[in-house]
Amino acid sequence: MNLNSYLKEKEDIINKALDTVLPKEDEFPQRLHKAMRYSVFAGGKRVRPILCLACAEVFAKLNENITNIGCAIELIHTYSLIHDDLPALDNDDLRRGMPTNHKVFGEAMAILAGDALLASAFSIMASCKAATNDEQASLLDTIREIAKAAGSTGMVGGQVVDIESEGKEVAFPVLEYIHIHKTGELILASCRAGAIMAGADEKPLEAITKYGEAIGLAFQIADDILDVEGQREHMGKGVGGDAKKGKITYPAVLGIDESRKRAQELVDIAITVIGNFGPKAKPLVEIAKYIVERRK
Amino acid sequence: MNLNSYLKEKEDIINKALDTVLPKEDEFPQRLHKAMRYSVFAGGKRVRPILCLACAEVFAKLNENITNIGCAIELIHTYSLIHDDLPALDNDDLRRGMPTNHKVFGEAMAILAGDALLASAFSIMASCKAATNDEQASLLDTIREIAKAAGSTGMVGGQVVDIESEGKEVAFPVLEYIHIHKTGELILASCRAGAIMAGADEKPLEAITKYGEAIGLAFQIADDILDVEGQREHMGKGVGGDAKKGKITYPAVLGIDESRKRAQELVDIAITVIGNFGPKAKPLVEIAKYIVERRK
Repeated sequence: MNLNSYLKEKEDIINKALDTVLPKEDEFPQRLHKAMRYSVFAGGKRVRPILCLACAEVFAKLNENITNIGCAIELIHTYSLIHDDLPALDNDDLRRGMPTNHKVFGEAMAILAGDALLASAFSIMASCKAATNDEQASLLDTIREIAKAAGSTGMVGGQVVDIESEGKEVAFPVLEYIHIHKTGELILASCRAGAIMAGADEKPLEAITKYGEAIGLAFQIADDILDVEGQREHMGKGVGGDAKKGKITYPAVLGIDESRKRAQELVDIAITVIGNFGPKAKPLVEIAKYIVERRK
Repeated sequence: MNLNSYLKEKEDIINKALDTVLPKEDEFPQRLHKAMRYSVFAGGKRVRPILCLACAEVFAKLNENITNIGCAIELIHTYSLIHDDLPALDNDDLRRGMPTNHKVFGEAMAILAGDALLASAFSIMASCKAATNDEQASLLDTIREIAKAAGSTGMVGGQVVDIESEGKEVAFPVLEYIHIHKTGELILASCRAGAIMAGADEKPLEAITKYGEAIGLAFQIADDILDVEGQREHMGKGVGGDAKKGKITYPAVLGIDESRKRAQELVDIAITVIGNFGPKAKPLVEIAKYIVERRK
């Protein structure tokens, strides 16, 4: 398979669905909807929804529900970036080479656009069509898992510990906590949500869970390495930004070589645990490799 | 019936349930959970969850699901207050006589505590026990309606228009839009959620909807009047704060007497539409009256 065309195909599906589920720019209040759309369409790689779709396709054909769950996850990811970039948090002016939301729309609007994206994610999920008992149960499981992954013991928890650790000497378990929670939990939830919505049984769902855990952490380690090594035009933001902010990173704690080794080990684990799925899991294998090999 | 003891009884049920559904202060990350709990237990009147419970009791006995939906709504209300108070928005130092969340925990934590409260509301709702097809459908309807009420065409939409209207001459329909969306939508959703979770049929649900719309708007008009007339110790914040911020209010546009008349008309409508429910709706009647008669 050609990974690039696979990613492009899924990205197009997600972008089209995002355009459908989000309120239009001319819908009142226009400036709020403009702010929400600005960040959603600011060039994200759609890693999370693509993982959701790819995990679902191991078990069933894609349908509108699965695509919409993917969209909801991307909106949650986008809201977290908008709030992370705020002056009170990371105070970033650029994101993916474009001015951050609050730089364009002001702080108040950026806070509220983030809030609205989070709420709309749940509105989209709860609007999925679910007729049978099984479908409804899967949908409720999905909503619960994604909400938990986004919450105080998930993504927001990781973000809090990240901020509290800035400029401090922190132990390795704290670094791992930050990475697993700030990035890993939502990536894991993306994988599980896709599989659950596609009706995966318990045993295969366990494999998907291990896959999601491994690539979630690998993704963040790779991000840390890119922050040190990446080229400005690839990352769309200043390189070495983490170090400048006194943020704790894998390369800072383990060194570049050891970090790279750790990320590769995690990718190997991810590929091994889904070994039984056969050709249908080929995209998951390629995505796992891509996560550590990507240059942005 | 004695309204005060009724409100106290329901408030106790909600406070106990909130304590159960929220992560404890000693759960990691502790400071985040402390910040979340600080605002949740900062003396709210629990109007929304009480309405949820009172509407449910017209149709069925209370159960844990209904109480938890009430809690989720209160968490959404609390998150909206935390974010509203931020320096970039209303920049308030006091709320209910206590320092606002960002004054105690800092801006970054206040933003994240609000985010986590919003996410946890959906995690709590999606964790409700729902076995039958009907129960699952009601729960999904409830989640969808609450998410929509909280989103860009609901509460956040009202907040955006409120901020954009500050210090400007705005037309009456804009004022009404702000009030209906910023406060009304979540109050309406509280009423409908209670009735839906209690299995209300279409026709009675229509009556609850009209009741919720009327008291939602009456509540905000009463709030506007209290802001002008209320005593500092009753409101727990500076009186006349709205005018100082150049915020548009009912008394500013219609005058105090006309505003009071409009609120009373809405309460009369609310009481009329639930006239067929009999003694079980007595609390709803008393709550409607209380909304315009309260002194804080």
